[in-house]
Amino acid sequence: MNRTRLDPLGFRAEDAADAAEARGAPNGLDRWLVRQITTRLGDSPVRLALWDDPDLPAREGAVRLRILDRQALWQLLVNPDLHFGDLYSAGRIEVRGELRVLLQEAYRYTTDNTTIGSLLRRARRLAPDLSESKRNIHHHYDLGNDFYTLWLDRQALQYTCAYYADPAMTIEQAQQAKMHHVCRKLRLKPGETVVEAGSGWGGFALFMAENYGVKVRTFNISREQVAYAREWSARRGLTDRVEFVEDDYRNLAGTYDAFVSIGMLEHVGVGNYDDLGKLMGRAIGANGRGLVHSIGRDVTAQLNAWIDKRIFPGAQPPTIREMMDLFEPNGLSVLDLENIRLHYAKTLEQWLERYEENIDKVAAMFDETFVRAWRLYLVGSIAAFLTGKLQLFQALFAKSGANNVPWTRAHVYEPRG
Amino acid sequence: MNRTRLDPLGFRAEDAADAAEARGAPNGLDRWLVRQITTRLGDSPVRLALWDDPDLPAREGAVRLRILDRQALWQLLVNPDLHFGDLYSAGRIEVRGELRVLLQEAYRYTTDNTTIGSLLRRARRLAPDLSESKRNIHHHYDLGNDFYTLWLDRQALQYTCAYYADPAMTIEQAQQAKMHHVCRKLRLKPGETVVEAGSGWGGFALFMAENYGVKVRTFNISREQVAYAREWSARRGLTDRVEFVEDDYRNLAGTYDAFVSIGMLEHVGVGNYDDLGKLMGRAIGANGRGLVHSIGRDVTAQLNAWIDKRIFPGAQPPTIREMMDLFEPNGLSVLDLENIRLHYAKTLEQWLERYEENIDKVAAMFDETFVRAWRLYLVGSIAAFLTGKLQLFQALFAKSGANNVPWTRAHVYEPRG
Repeated sequence: MNRTRLDPLGFRAEDAADAAEARGAPNGLDRWLVRQITTRLGDSPVRLALWDDPDLPAREGAVRLRILDRQALWQLLVNPDLHFGDLYSAGRIEVRGELRVLLQEAYRYTTDNTTIGSLLRRARRLAPDLSESKRNIHHHYDLGNDFYTLWLDRQALQYTCAYYADPAMTIEQAQQAKMHHVCRKLRLKPGETVVEAGSGWGGFALFMAENYGVKVRTFNISREQVAYAREWSARRGLTDRVEFVEDDYRNLAGTYDAFVSIGMLEHVGVGNYDDLGKLMGRAIGANGRGLVHSIGRDVTAQLNAWIDKRIFPGAQPPTIREMMDLFEPNGLSVLDLENIRLHYAKTLEQWLERYEENIDKVAAMFDETFVRAWRLYLVGSIAAFLTGKLQLFQALFAKSGANNVPWTRAHVYEPRG
Repeated sequence: MNRTRLDPLGFRAEDAADAAEARGAPNGLDRWLVRQITTRLGDSPVRLALWDDPDLPAREGAVRLRILDRQALWQLLVNPDLHFGDLYSAGRIEVRGELRVLLQEAYRYTTDNTTIGSLLRRARRLAPDLSESKRNIHHHYDLGNDFYTLWLDRQALQYTCAYYADPAMTIEQAQQAKMHHVCRKLRLKPGETVVEAGSGWGGFALFMAENYGVKVRTFNISREQVAYAREWSARRGLTDRVEFVEDDYRNLAGTYDAFVSIGMLEHVGVGNYDDLGKLMGRAIGANGRGLVHSIGRDVTAQLNAWIDKRIFPGAQPPTIREMMDLFEPNGLSVLDLENIRLHYAKTLEQWLERYEENIDKVAAMFDETFVRAWRLYLVGSIAAFLTGKLQLFQALFAKSGANNVPWTRAHVYEPRG
């Protein structure tokens, strides 16, 4: 347990071994490699430096990537996707200037084969993507509520994309707005029943019961999160209106007025979408409606190797085409699909701000390697959403041919009473 | 030319030949077939009758399908998809009660294998689907402007789904609202340039120029429609702001602030979507946006054989999955996808109402066969949209990673100034 605390992302001592040993003066091959890469970087604001170069600040708008030992240089050349994150986290690569600029450059030049060198081209998969936990929720949850409450919104503990109805909103306001946005799309009415797949800490289930007068049954496989949610529910006097089920969503039974899932689909795996869609279809019966909110992509791609190893093993943001496996084979009709990608970049910026404000507490909870790894994950996710490598889809659906569907979407945008 | 006028949908005299000859009294086999079907129809409101049965009115809510000769009975059994339309048009089948009820029943029971007989099950593809013309616009356009102006909206001649922002709107108001809805999704601003693929009679191009102050270039391969549109444009003093190009959309070149296409995709063919998407991507450059409005489906299916033969040869409404061939391979990102299926049912109801009001004029222009065929097409399309066999998608898109996209969709629903 102590070990988990000290090394929660699974870094092992040997990852950093022998770095000092390899740190003799750069040789001719080292310098030749850097020159090759530099030439091919062209007009990119990214520049490389080796361990004996002076540690200069980066020019305005530019980024200096300092590689601090020979092994790091070679690891970066051999498999940047996997090693960049660990090397950065271990402090064996240093970034002078904006980390976000580096990662956005890496993303932006993904399809540009003319001026950017192979390092940067390969680095397209290097900057981490953000997603949320299911398959490895235990891994992720070992980090503890104390950690997440440092930087998530304090009102509803939403670890998913917020909705900035007004761009000036705080993270608390935007998470409330996100939950209203989903409930209004679903047109929840008092007395209706809702089933939720993936509860997190229970913030959305409790919100629906409190603000829309519905009865909620919600599924989560994390014992710790369920325990937290039940306690929270009791404090708010909602135990008769919200049932937290500690079980896999696949065991969800019964028929409800609405099905909702926020930030779980990323962890389901495309191969399971047909089964999930069948379950959604049964859950809403002939006349219900549902909403799935998920990180997505414009084109199919694998999750970055480092994120897969350290942050979210097995996560897989789907394309719209892939999402159709939920609906098409199962008699479901998509009524409305909204892409709020830029809202996730803003959400992450506000999380990152709080994270940095609490950086001493994070370092005290874990260590410097963790601090850097988590920063890389947050910043890389901002870059991924800003460059369009990741999307955020909300898909509203009903049974194909069900005619009790909203006539327009105007009700979603009416002033709230 | 006279022949085309008299037989515009390609009915030929031989289709109806020998009907009278085959009209001896029903024999044992005829009656046995009807009994088999009737037994299996179960609780369906549809009942069959043969040519010597008394011509009774249908019970309230029920439908009597009278088959008036032996050849018709057998054609219906062998290939209802193809023959129902011709038999109905020729008056060799009569429907007592609501034609729409019959067609909706046929659609509704598509996936129900328990109580409905084989006739009705096969009839799932029998009721016609609605779509619009491109590949066979000449075929379709031979019907003449005089015909369409009898029943389309009188203000903008829109032969595509209207948008009833308020369900009490007239067809004129709802077509204006549809065009506003599209322009607001695209956030058109004065001085911007728009390219349109598929002009129809030019109503939308002229609307954009007049109401949003944009310059429009629009493509159409129908010489007659282009001539009509140019004259209309001149009357409204818009010739310097709207250019009607008589050419295939595939020859569209240049870069514009926005690309728009309403009711053309149905005729492009899924195999051509990748090429169309490439063209759309070039048309909007790095910072433009686009909208595609098309009839669609929840699941892939062939167009009804009769519609394909008589009304719209080659039309193919896509699923969302199929539509992704436009976007995914071409660096385009879907921002917003709206399904307004029920608005097309209402549009068709208002078209049908005007059609029936002008039925004498239609009969004078063509003949009784045409009158019945076109009615079947309109009523069948209503049934297809009401039962969810057809959908209506509007997809808004931009380049993947373009960040000058609308922050929310609230602007679409603000009161118009």
